[in-house]
Parts: sequence; structure tokens; C-alpha cells
Amino acid sequence: MEHKVTRTSEAQPIRCKAAVSRKQGEPLSIEEIIVAPPMPHEARIKVICTTLCHVDLTFWRIKDPASIWPRILGHEAIGVVESIGENVTEVAKGDVVMTIFLPDCGECVDCKSEKSNLCSKFPFKVSPWVTRYDSSRFTDLNGQIIHHFLFVSSFSEYTVVDIANLTKIDPVAPPNKACLLSCGISAGLGAAWRLANVEPGSTVAIFGLGSIGLAVAEGARFCGATRIIGVDVKPEKFETAKKFGVTDFVHAGECGDKSLSQGWGKTIVLGVDKPESNLSLNTREVLFNGKSLIGCLFGGLKPKSHVPILLKRYMDKELKLDEFVTHELKFEDINKAFDLLVNGECVRCVVWMDK
Amino acid sequence: MEHKVTRTSEAQPIRCKAAVSRKQGEPLSIEEIIVAPPMPHEARIKVICTTLCHVDLTFWRIKDPASIWPRILGHEAIGVVESIGENVTEVAKGDVVMTIFLPDCGECVDCKSEKSNLCSKFPFKVSPWVTRYDSSRFTDLNGQIIHHFLFVSSFSEYTVVDIANLTKIDPVAPPNKACLLSCGISAGLGAAWRLANVEPGSTVAIFGLGSIGLAVAEGARFCGATRIIGVDVKPEKFETAKKFGVTDFVHAGECGDKSLSQGWGKTIVLGVDKPESNLSLNTREVLFNGKSLIGCLFGGLKPKSHVPILLKRYMDKELKLDEFVTHELKFEDINKAFDLLVNGECVRCVVWMDK
Repeated sequence: MEHKVTRTSEAQPIRCKAAVSRKQGEPLSIEEIIVAPPMPHEARIKVICTTLCHVDLTFWRIKDPASIWPRILGHEAIGVVESIGENVTEVAKGDVVMTIFLPDCGECVDCKSEKSNLCSKFPFKVSPWVTRYDSSRFTDLNGQIIHHFLFVSSFSEYTVVDIANLTKIDPVAPPNKACLLSCGISAGLGAAWRLANVEPGSTVAIFGLGSIGLAVAEGARFCGATRIIGVDVKPEKFETAKKFGVTDFVHAGECGDKSLSQGWGKTIVLGVDKPESNLSLNTREVLFNGKSLIGCLFGGLKPKSHVPILLKRYMDKELKLDEFVTHELKFEDINKAFDLLVNGECVRCVVWMDK
Repeated sequence: MEHKVTRTSEAQPIRCKAAVSRKQGEPLSIEEIIVAPPMPHEARIKVICTTLCHVDLTFWRIKDPASIWPRILGHEAIGVVESIGENVTEVAKGDVVMTIFLPDCGECVDCKSEKSNLCSKFPFKVSPWVTRYDSSRFTDLNGQIIHHFLFVSSFSEYTVVDIANLTKIDPVAPPNKACLLSCGISAGLGAAWRLANVEPGSTVAIFGLGSIGLAVAEGARFCGATRIIGVDVKPEKFETAKKFGVTDFVHAGECGDKSLSQGWGKTIVLGVDKPESNLSLNTREVLFNGKSLIGCLFGGLKPKSHVPILLKRYMDKELKLDEFVTHELKFEDINKAFDLLVNGECVRCVVWMDK
């Protein structure tokens, strides 16, 4: 907790539109809010576009211990820095930035290490506040506090984000593609690239062919896997999956229970499970023979060092991102984007703030 | 299965003493048996000394699906090659060898890879036979077949072992120390060295301060860990554990449930669990944050390449082995060695065949 409250003198509160989640599972309410100026180590961002991720959906409809309303959801976004607080040198007004929910302070033992992507100075949490202060930068027109979500809250024309949650990106990158690297798609790519260390010629099985699973497939293809087996309960997903390099389809009900190579097989667990979920393993089958089970956040990627590499690979046409964007909507239609995701009708839906 | 039965012409059946396990959990019976000459790819070994490992104890007293009687237990041993079968070039008569239960054919994709220590040509199993033939080399004086155990069966003056289960060692090494590297102690050392990749300055927690746990401590000390925390239900084990580099003791009932560093913490599971044992994990706590759970056999060590390195480190006085040997007995007293292990009175007990 820092209590210094000095702000950059010229920054004033901004009145703008935001999609506010006022009650669990109810449609977002597009309304005018006030966004305070950034505090030290923060930047205020004009959001260009944002993507819906399943994590937004999960925390919109479940009652998690961290749930608190009203709040502004959204965490995958590209924006332009509108103003900066004190002690911000990494970005300047006018810079194009990606918001990333996972803090990267760059200074702690974990951020300095190649082994971890989990900042120990600002541990990840589903916080109702900005990253380093227990306070909100949002109020409604009645003066009521509106809470933050995942340190980002991108379903707003303007938001305030800690510099630890911002990665400066190439301004030439198309924002509706770059924003995909802000969370889910990067997690899938990173799982294949950084955690499974997929090697040329290897075989990868992917359980679940949602957007993250498809990103794992693209990551595996990029790393040279020759056989990419998609496992899902819905065979119709195989058609879409082929575009992402999936070579074989196995119905989840028919895949048996031993899919991991002994000696070096790795299981990477991605995504958010329900609170208190348990995993039961037969220790002799699963652990006795050189297999490993690896958990991660953000596919093991370090936000500020690895994401720009992935974006460059996309710009160099080595990595596919375009295929993930199946829908693009205006901000005023954001509730339709929720419907698309709820009904499994989109891979990724981009929401443009200004169109 | 190979059916070629040509044998080296000069090798004849040998009559010698063995400790035969005739019934589950009953004292071994020292009796005369006949040991057939080695088949192709096999060597007949004159055992110098053997060590009792908890795995012998487990398979002596439990009724496992793989259990079959009568059989000759024992798998940690040093011996001298007495004769070789056809197609054996790796060892010759008179060579000093270590038996290792985990096959290492040296030719399959797994044996050639640095990533795995589990031979895919001869997968590990608790086999009642020699490694590459479904047959036994042991009969009693009534002509009844006596089964093998873990491809080794070292509780016999002579045994026949596949070349895939033999590692030639420096004949200068003291056999009563070298034999420790045949299974359990190597597994502990390997877990710290090869799987956890313990780095200088790191902290290691060891759950269970039996001989394997102490070997993990020695491996961690060797790799430069500065804090080695022993966790056990018996505080009196801390005194012995200090000799192996354990710096702190925590009672198992008081250690809480979160001992793994997020971001890069690794849990390595060693040893043999009861059949059908299950491990239940809270997925959010355990997997959500960059932790991993790794299973192994033999601590991830490759028998023929890594064990000679460990033995050299011992010979160079960098690695401690002497401290593990708390008891040495004659072969005729092998049932006392079982009692010592059952009662937790020894770390490692060496049984000499000729003394």
C-alpha cells in the first residue's frame, strides 16, 4: 500500500461510457461513469478495442468469493495512453499498449527470473481494486464506487491500469488482432511453446477445442508438432480445429484413459476451474513413470518479454491470429458478445469502442 | 520374445545358495538352487553384496497382482560377471557390475533421448521372469521353477541378469557402498539433481526422512541447496537427518498445506505407492499458479549414463554414501535384515554373500 496521492497536474477526471456489471449474471448496463486520473505508477488508457474471454463470462455468472458488484469486467484490450501518473517512465501519452491481467513489476525475484511468470511483488488476484492501491478509479454519476476486475476493467471507454499490467506494443499492429494476445490466446500459445516445450515432430493432444485449445494447437503447429490430436465432446468442432493445425479428432468418450507418453509426457492444465474443484489421480498410473502435471497462469508467459515476441511472429506472418476473430461488434452491442460466448457461437469476439 | 537358445558353450548350470521367498510375508528360506547359464544378451553374475530396499519389503509382504511365489527377491547389488551369453559385448567375464532394475537398452527412442529414463524396448515391470524372455533361470533341487523379481533377484549367490539391467562400474569402488546406487539412494539423489534441478541457494522440503528422503537431502546438499527442511511424523529422525544436510525439521502435523513456491515450485513424487492409491488435489490451489507435480522411477536417472557419474562423485569424496550404511550382515542372516527394515532400525543394511 502506497499512500502518496500526487497526480500529474494536467490529468482531470474523465466522463465516459462503460458497460457496468451491476448484478451477477444480468446484462451489462451501458452508462456514464467518471474515471479518475491515474495515481503514481498508473496510466489512464483510452480503450481502442477489447475482447471477451471466458474468464469474464465465468466471473460474470458465478458467485465467487472475490465477486463484488457493481464492477467493470473485461481484461483483454488494446488502448492508447491518455495520461500517466507520477513515476511512470515505461509508457508515455500516445503510446499503444496492451493490458495484461498478470502483473509484471520487472523488479522482484520472480519477474527477474526466467523460471517464473508470477510476480511476487503484485501477486495475481481477482481484485476489485487497481493493482497497488486498495482503491477504485471508477465512480458512477451518483458518486458510488464501481469496482475493478483483474486489474484491467476494459469494458469502458477509459480505464486506469497499473504500469505492471501494461505492455507497450508496436503501434502498427492491428488492434483487433493484437488484443487476442492479452490473455486466452497467449495462454494457449505459451502452454505449447514455453511449458510443454513442443519440439519438431512431436505429438500433442488437446482436451477441449475452445479458443484456448485452438490456441494450443496453433502454438503446437508453430513449434513444429506433426500430429495434433483434438479431443472434445463435439465432433463438429473438428472442422474449425483443422484451420488451427489439428490433424486428428478423438471423441472425448472414446479416448481411453492413458494418453500421456511415459518417461516424458507432460500434462499442462490451463484456464480457471470452479472454486474447490478437485482432481483425483491414480498415483501409480499417473505418477509412477516419469509423467508430469503442470499448472500455469497465462501459459507460463512473462507479459512484457514474451508477448511482444508473439506479436512480432504474427506481424511476420509466422503465427496465425486472424482466424481466431469470428465476430466484431460495437461497444453498444457488448451484451450480444456475451450471448455469443455463452452459446459457444464464437471463437473470439472483438468489441470496438469507437465504431 | 526371442527364441534363439544358443548358449556360450562353456557355461554350465551352477548349484549355489539362494534366499527363496516361498510364501508372502514368511521368512526367506536359504536353500540350494540351480542357476541356468545365461541366454543371449544375458550375463550370469556372482553377487558380492546386496542391499535391502523397501521395495523388496513391499513386494515380500503385500499381495500385488504381480506377486508370484516361489521367487528370489533383491535388486540392489554389486557382482562379478561369471559368464556371458551370446551377443554380449558390453561386459566380459570378471567385470564388476551393478544390477539396476530399470532396463536401459541404449537403442530405443527413449534410451537415446535425454528426456526419459524409461526404456520403451523393455518397459519396467515387476516381472517374474528375466528381462527379454518369459522364462526363469532358477530351479530348486526338485526341478520346480523359482521366479525372478524386478529383473534382478540378487538374494542369491549367483543370478542371471539381462545386459539392459547391468551397469559396468569402477572395480576399485567399495561394493558395500557402490551397491547403494543400485536403486533407492540413487532415486533420491536423482530426484534432487535431475528432476528438481536444485540450484545453489535454493530451499528444498523433504516429506519423509527414510533412506530415500535422506538421499534427497544429500542430493540437495550436493547441488548447493542452503535450506533443507525435513518433514516427518517422528522428530527423532532429525538427528540422523542432520548428517545428511537437513537444516530444519518440521513435524508433519504442523506444516500446513501450502509448502510449494508459486511460479516455479516442483513436487517430485518418489517411491512405490500401494496399488490403486489416489491423490486428490484442489486444482485451484495446486495447479493454478505455475506449480508442477512430477512422477518418476529411479529419480529420473538413466542407469548406464548417470549412475557412473554418481559413483565417481562418491569416489572423489564429493557425495556421501558411507553414512547410509548402518548395518552389514552375512547372507545367512538375511531375515535379520528384513526385521531391521520392518522395524525402521536401519537406514541401509548391506548383506555380504561371502562373509
